[in-house]
Amino acid sequence: MKRLPRISARPGLLALLLAAWAWLPASAAEVHRLLLAESWPPNYPIFGEAIQNLTESVRRMSGGRLIITSHARNKHKAPLGIFDMVKAGQYDIGHSASYYWKGKVPNTLYFTTMPFGMTTPEQYAWFYHGGGMELMNRVYQPHGLLSFPGGNTGNQMGGWFQKEINGLDDLKGLKMRIPGFAGEVLAKLGAKPTNIAAGELYSALERGTIDALEWVGPSLDLRMGFHRIAPYYYTGWHEPAAELQFLVNQRSWERLPEDLQEILRVAMRAAAFEIYVHTYHASAVNWATMKQDYPQIKVRTFPPVVMDALREANAGLLRERAAADPLAREIIESQAAYLAKARAWTDISDLAYLNSQHR
Amino acid sequence: MKRLPRISARPGLLALLLAAWAWLPASAAEVHRLLLAESWPPNYPIFGEAIQNLTESVRRMSGGRLIITSHARNKHKAPLGIFDMVKAGQYDIGHSASYYWKGKVPNTLYFTTMPFGMTTPEQYAWFYHGGGMELMNRVYQPHGLLSFPGGNTGNQMGGWFQKEINGLDDLKGLKMRIPGFAGEVLAKLGAKPTNIAAGELYSALERGTIDALEWVGPSLDLRMGFHRIAPYYYTGWHEPAAELQFLVNQRSWERLPEDLQEILRVAMRAAAFEIYVHTYHASAVNWATMKQDYPQIKVRTFPPVVMDALREANAGLLRERAAADPLAREIIESQAAYLAKARAWTDISDLAYLNSQHR
Repeated sequence: MKRLPRISARPGLLALLLAAWAWLPASAAEVHRLLLAESWPPNYPIFGEAIQNLTESVRRMSGGRLIITSHARNKHKAPLGIFDMVKAGQYDIGHSASYYWKGKVPNTLYFTTMPFGMTTPEQYAWFYHGGGMELMNRVYQPHGLLSFPGGNTGNQMGGWFQKEINGLDDLKGLKMRIPGFAGEVLAKLGAKPTNIAAGELYSALERGTIDALEWVGPSLDLRMGFHRIAPYYYTGWHEPAAELQFLVNQRSWERLPEDLQEILRVAMRAAAFEIYVHTYHASAVNWATMKQDYPQIKVRTFPPVVMDALREANAGLLRERAAADPLAREIIESQAAYLAKARAWTDISDLAYLNSQHR
Repeated sequence: MKRLPRISARPGLLALLLAAWAWLPASAAEVHRLLLAESWPPNYPIFGEAIQNLTESVRRMSGGRLIITSHARNKHKAPLGIFDMVKAGQYDIGHSASYYWKGKVPNTLYFTTMPFGMTTPEQYAWFYHGGGMELMNRVYQPHGLLSFPGGNTGNQMGGWFQKEINGLDDLKGLKMRIPGFAGEVLAKLGAKPTNIAAGELYSALERGTIDALEWVGPSLDLRMGFHRIAPYYYTGWHEPAAELQFLVNQRSWERLPEDLQEILRVAMRAAAFEIYVHTYHASAVNWATMKQDYPQIKVRTFPPVVMDALREANAGLLRERAAADPLAREIIESQAAYLAKARAWTDISDLAYLNSQHR
């Protein structure tokens, strides 16, 4: 250890040292510590990795002045309590999904993904350039919270089915694990949506407790093993762009000096992008594995008559919500208007291109 | 202005101050300045804005310790000389596109976009998880350069045509402004590709000096006004995911302390994401404007017989390149293998979803 210079007690000298110290930016001296709660199990692929990368990257960017400690759900035991914990300041940041809070704050529903809604690039364009961030702020601000896009899982699959869905009759009484708003839409058509804990899903589907379930897509379905016990894999309609969320306590945010705020803001944006890209990769690789191991998987898209009925039920539910709440109406209308514009572009760009590659 | 404490000339005191200074991380004291050259005109929409945001964000994240000064092409007058200028250390960073250097280093061709190639999310997945970054490094490393993805324009349109393309005969002798590899592909089918400076494109198309041209897509085509003078707008085949590039001089990079390297790395990644999202937005908004002002624009996709011939010509050119260079072969094979996997996923996710929304 280097010997430190002995400081003599002359007051003039101390004053000089303090003055020298004051010339530095105040922030350079101080380490800021933030606690982050994830909704995911420990070492969760993709999501958990992105959070690990974020904490490491933030540490490096700040020269060790911003230290984020992350707790997976085994630590805080409240994967769906993150809104409350971050609001109360028990945690400074959460990594979760906005629509988990719809039972508590109904308008949080709209900032993850919507049935028949925007695809991932369309929705990011809406968030950052189409007014989405401003609307999200208006929902979260009264709770002393800041919400940022937290990474997209891409288009989720419609789920695993034991029987083919050929018409509306096949939905009547269908017992399906499908939570959230999509479950409400299906219920309108006579299905019996239910939620079942992840650990019991496989046996529920195998034993016929349920007839169908949706989880995510190949990126995370592969390890669940559903492809071994259900022959039909339906394409998605209900979560075309599931966006995760960084939820930040506003007081924690305001305590950070400007440079660390910017480091955190940019790191969260890079993490969101990384989750989108990483999920895309995992989906591609895992889908290839599934098809190789189980070439008999039958990929289906719901027939038009079912899609139309689902779309109509969805529109009816949205009309009810819009009528009940002016801010909900504003969000729903903003999304619909933006979707119309963005989809017209998607149709002549990516969609036309992808279709032209098939023949 | 605050009065600085007067420093007396006693040597013991100075030594003490220097010692105090030495305790700080060396980097905290030092301002690093980097010079960035853009291939774009001054105040260029989207690309130029992203670079402005990046320099501002980097300044804030580093507390003023990393200052990037950006020069648009009116300053350095060498939009296509960026490879050389960054290699020589005249600039530390360039913002440009990899395929601009194919005349100089043929294998740089593959890191922007390829005809019939990957879409934007597919290509990002390849870069970051499918081996793309490693291959790109092998191409740039011998030149003392680091290359990073620099933002995606999304799927580019196939261009503006005066006449409809119904078969291969319509391509024979067609004078079209289309640079790069796609031009080589079209030439194989008897078209006469040419390059014309941006400022002369409108009059060239209007006067019939050329029969067709491709530029970018609605995001940047609107201001060029082509929709006023050409009736057919073809969907894309040749640049499904045009990725820009951050080109960094390796010595400049290595001179940065670790924290500033990480700040720059993350800022570049966030800028790339921002360009993708912003272009998507601009495309959506501008396409809506075009359609409103000129509802007679006819959107067309090349008929299958033309697509097949283009695809075959493209494959032939790639075979020639693969045969001539082992690294080219490795890159081409890596892209083809990854595309097959990623596209199978795109087909059952975004493509199935988008098609199901049409009827």
